[in-house]
Amino acid sequence: MWLQREIGLQPRSRGFYLVTGEVVDAMPEIAELSVGIVHLHIMHTSASLTLNENASPDVRRDFESWFSDAVPERASYWTHTLEGPDDMPAHIKASLLGPSLTVPVGEGRLKLGTWQGVYLCEHRDAGGGRSLVATVWGE
Amino acid sequence: MWLQREIGLQPRSRGFYLVTGEVVDAMPEIAELSVGIVHLHIMHTSASLTLNENASPDVRRDFESWFSDAVPERASYWTHTLEGPDDMPAHIKASLLGPSLTVPVGEGRLKLGTWQGVYLCEHRDAGGGRSLVATVWGE
Amino acid sequence: MWLQREIGLQPRSRGFYLVTGEVVDAMPEIAELSVGIVHLHIMHTSASLTLNENASPDVRRDFESWFSDAVPERASYWTHTLEGPDDMPAHIKASLLGPSLTVPVGEGRLKLGTWQGVYLCEHRDAGGGRSLVATVWGE
Repeated sequence: MWLQREIGLQPRSRGFYLVTGEVVDAMPEIAELSVGIVHLHIMHTSASLTLNENASPDVRRDFESWFSDAVPERASYWTHTLEGPDDMPAHIKASLLGPSLTVPVGEGRLKLGTWQGVYLCEHRDAGGGRSLVATVWGE
Repeated sequence: MWLQREIGLQPRSRGFYLVTGEVVDAMPEIAELSVGIVHLHIMHTSASLTLNENASPDVRRDFESWFSDAVPERASYWTHTLEGPDDMPAHIKASLLGPSLTVPVGEGRLKLGTWQGVYLCEHRDAGGGRSLVATVWGE
Repeated sequence: MWLQREIGLQPRSRGFYLVTGEVVDAMPEIAELSVGIVHLHIMHTSASLTLNENASPDVRRDFESWFSDAVPERASYWTHTLEGPDDMPAHIKASLLGPSLTVPVGEGRLKLGTWQGVYLCEHRDAGGGRSLVATVWGE
């Protein structure tokens, strides 16, 4: 079985968001797989995807704090500044976290750990809507 | 061919560990594949997987030094502190390195470079045992 | 359909390089797939792959600036120093960005966003040629 589908995510302000439900609901066919993989790919260079703790909103807030501290807006070495001070840090953060996730599927559902959820990582102040390509394969 | 199997890793103290042998030994069926992929997924949000240098233990020690310096325990911006000072840094490190690896298989074995080994990255002081889901597909 | 092929990349000095064309040209069979995945794996521990902005050379220059600042050559905590001051930082950078990319294929071509290109991230001053293993599967 192969399936590929685009998933649109609404505009969000800069920060880290739990989107596991939105993503899983868009692929009900996962229930038919005894074993397989879900691949999620974000079509952008200033937003990214990761898996992390799905319970405490303060974890997601602390993600934003650490990344904004580690990749500062006002560093002397930036030369790509035409698109605003949040743009070049957004590119770096996007590559640190990565543009895609591969999640195993077993017995009809994502095999995530108890505390693992899918994060949309929005690195622009106003990045607009974001598009994912979800690709699923298995048997 | 599809195969999915859980691999249990014993508790280890905080640090970076070479686990290539443990992981490969758990999937002897790789030998039957002419081409394929091994996907390793860690079921946790405070430990991660990466590939890096498989020869010098000092490389793994220096990984621990850099990550502990780059993601400090006692930063003023942490708000998620209830689970101990090593918890929130562990979540950040886990996402920087990522929860999964995809390794090509060719002619019956992992196509790793000469110096590439699988690292378990344990970011908690006492994270306990860790579970991987290994998924293999190919022909 | 399964395909696996080694792609050799010429020696480049330290920095970030757009290699989308080189990589895509090496896999013309992608055109035959209605849906699938391209997996790119770098066989090294001091170079890496990522997706990022494909238009402005200054973005790639700023990547080099940020990574060299965030993972400094002359830190007091390095113990693996025998292979030169650029070696241990190269290992860290390689794991931060990761050794592989998985890109969805749809209707005969890579489903990359408008601004997404494949970067070779060369972290050594003189790392020599680099080898990728490209694995493609789909239908």
